[in-house]
Amino acid sequence: MIYTITLNPAIDHIILVDKNINLGMTNYYSNDYDVIGGKGINAAIVLNNLEDNVEAIGILGKDNKDIFIKKFNEIGLKNNFFINEGSTRVNYKIKNLSINQETELNGMGFKTQESNLLNIKDYIKKNVSEKDIVIVTGSIAMGINDNIYKEIGEIVVNKKALLVCDCKNELLKNVLEVKPYIIKPNLEEICSTFNIEYKDNFSFDEIENLINKLKILGARNILLSMGSDGSMYFSEDNSVYKVGVAKGKLVNSVGAGDSMLAGFVYGINNNLDIENTLKYAASCGGATAFTEWLANKKEIIDLLEQISVTKIK
Amino acid sequence: MIYTITLNPAIDHIILVDKNINLGMTNYYSNDYDVIGGKGINAAIVLNNLEDNVEAIGILGKDNKDIFIKKFNEIGLKNNFFINEGSTRVNYKIKNLSINQETELNGMGFKTQESNLLNIKDYIKKNVSEKDIVIVTGSIAMGINDNIYKEIGEIVVNKKALLVCDCKNELLKNVLEVKPYIIKPNLEEICSTFNIEYKDNFSFDEIENLINKLKILGARNILLSMGSDGSMYFSEDNSVYKVGVAKGKLVNSVGAGDSMLAGFVYGINNNLDIENTLKYAASCGGATAFTEWLANKKEIIDLLEQISVTKIK
Repeated sequence: MIYTITLNPAIDHIILVDKNINLGMTNYYSNDYDVIGGKGINAAIVLNNLEDNVEAIGILGKDNKDIFIKKFNEIGLKNNFFINEGSTRVNYKIKNLSINQETELNGMGFKTQESNLLNIKDYIKKNVSEKDIVIVTGSIAMGINDNIYKEIGEIVVNKKALLVCDCKNELLKNVLEVKPYIIKPNLEEICSTFNIEYKDNFSFDEIENLINKLKILGARNILLSMGSDGSMYFSEDNSVYKVGVAKGKLVNSVGAGDSMLAGFVYGINNNLDIENTLKYAASCGGATAFTEWLANKKEIIDLLEQISVTKIK
Repeated sequence: MIYTITLNPAIDHIILVDKNINLGMTNYYSNDYDVIGGKGINAAIVLNNLEDNVEAIGILGKDNKDIFIKKFNEIGLKNNFFINEGSTRVNYKIKNLSINQETELNGMGFKTQESNLLNIKDYIKKNVSEKDIVIVTGSIAMGINDNIYKEIGEIVVNKKALLVCDCKNELLKNVLEVKPYIIKPNLEEICSTFNIEYKDNFSFDEIENLINKLKILGARNILLSMGSDGSMYFSEDNSVYKVGVAKGKLVNSVGAGDSMLAGFVYGINNNLDIENTLKYAASCGGATAFTEWLANKKEIIDLLEQISVTKIK
C-alpha cells in the first residue's frame, strides 16, 4: 500500500479574466472554478489514476471539507482525513488569459490541533507495514512543528516501509536525519535549504556537490527535477541518470512535480527497473503539465516511449 | 405586504489583504467571507430588521442558492425564489486594508430562463393586492429584457398596489411609462439615463430641471439620494424637502442606498407622515453605512433624531 500524507491541503479557486486587471476598479471575470490541491493529494490522485493501491491521508478543515470528500468519492480514491476546526486554506488564483499572468492571493487556513497530528501518527503506526510506501510532501499548516516529517519518518522507517519525501528548508533538513529512501528537490529548493544563492546555470560538478551535501545529511536517492530540462537521478550506489522530457504544450504546471514523484513511486511499488521507473516519473510529470488538471492513465502511458533515460555515471 | 423583487442577486466574496497586491505574484490574504447581496434582497433584509411585513422574491442559481436560503432562514425573512440552472453571480471584492482600496472581479452568473420570469409575474398576479408595495430594484441578470420592470409594474399598478423603483437607463425609462409611485435615483444615474454629462456641482435649478424630465416621463415622487450630502424629496404635489444625514464613520457603503429605500417604504407602509418617512429613509441609509453589513432596528432608531427634514418648497 502507498500512503500519501497531506498536512496542508488547499482549495485552489481559479478565476479566469480576459483583460488586464485594474487594481482599485471594477473588473469582470469570465469563469471561475474550484480545484482541490495539496501535494500529497495530487500524488495520490495520479497513483490512483494509474490504478495503484494508494490511500490519501491528512487533515482537512471542518468548514470546507466536502469538496475534497466529494472528489475522492467521485474518483474512487481511498482516503482517511482527520477533521480540524476551521477551514482548509483557500488560494485564489487569478489568471489573466490575455497576458498569461497569474496573481495568487493565498490563505492561511486552520490552525492544526495537536490531537490530529497524534491521530495521524497513530494511524501510521497501526496501518503501515513492511514494504509499504509513505509519501510526505509539501508545506505544513499553521501550528505544526517542522519536525513533523522526521517524526512520521521515524515511524515509517522503523516499520521497514519506504519513506518518500518532497519538501524544503527545515522540514527537509529534519527529515533527512531519518534517511528517507528518496527525496525530490529542485535546485531552487536545495539552494533555499542550504541558504545558497540560486543561479540558472549550475555546472554538473556544482550540482553533484549539492547532491553530496544532501547525501551527507541522510538522503539516500535523489530525484532532481529541472522542469523542462528534465531530471537527474542520483542513486545511493552513486550512479547518475539523465532523464529527458516528453514533447507537448504546457497547459498547467500545477501538480507536475507531484505527478513526477507519483510516477517514481509507481515504478518502485510495481518493481520496475530504475530506467522504467524514471520513465514513469517523467511521463507523469509531463502528462500533468500538458493537461488541465492531473494526468490520467492513458495520457501517462502515451508519453512513456518518448522519455529518454541515459546512465551518465 | 411589501414584496421586493431581485432579478440579479449576488454573492459578494470579500477577500481582505493587509498589503499592496502585486499582480503576477504570490500574495497573501488575512481573511475572507461571503455576503449575500442584490439590491432587492438588501432592502428586504432592512425592512425585515424593522419588523415590517416583507417577502423577498426573485431568481437564484441552482448551484449556489444554499447560502441565500440559509441566511433567509437564519434571519427569518419570508422568501420565494424561483431556481434557475447555473450559479448566481459571485463578485470577488479584494479589499486592501493598507490603502483602503477595493478591487472588484465581478461575475456574470446564470442566463435567466424565460419560465422563471413567467413564474415571477404569475406569483405577483396571484399574491399582490391593493395597498401592497412592490419594490423592483437593481440591474437584471443575463437573458432578461429591459422591459421587465415595466411589465411587472403594469401588474402592480393594475392591482392598485404601490410600485417602488430603483434602477437606471433603459430599465428606468421603460418603467416610468407605468408611473411608479416613487423612484430613488442619484444624480449620476439620472445623467446616465438621459445621456447627459455628470458634474459635481449641479445648481438647484438644474436639479429641478432633471427631476421635471423624470416627472414628464412618468415619475410621481422622486427621492434623490446625494450620498453624504443627504437627499432631496420631490413629491407629486410639487413640494420639495431637503433631508440631512446622521453623523458617523463610514464603515461600508454597500447597501446604504437600498436601506434608504427600505426606510422610505417602511414609512409609507406604516402610514407615517412624509417628514417621518424621510427620517426613516435617511436613518436606514446612514445606519447601514456605519455598520459592517445591513443596519439592524436599534442602529436605525438611534439615528432618527439626528435627521433634519426641511420643506424648501
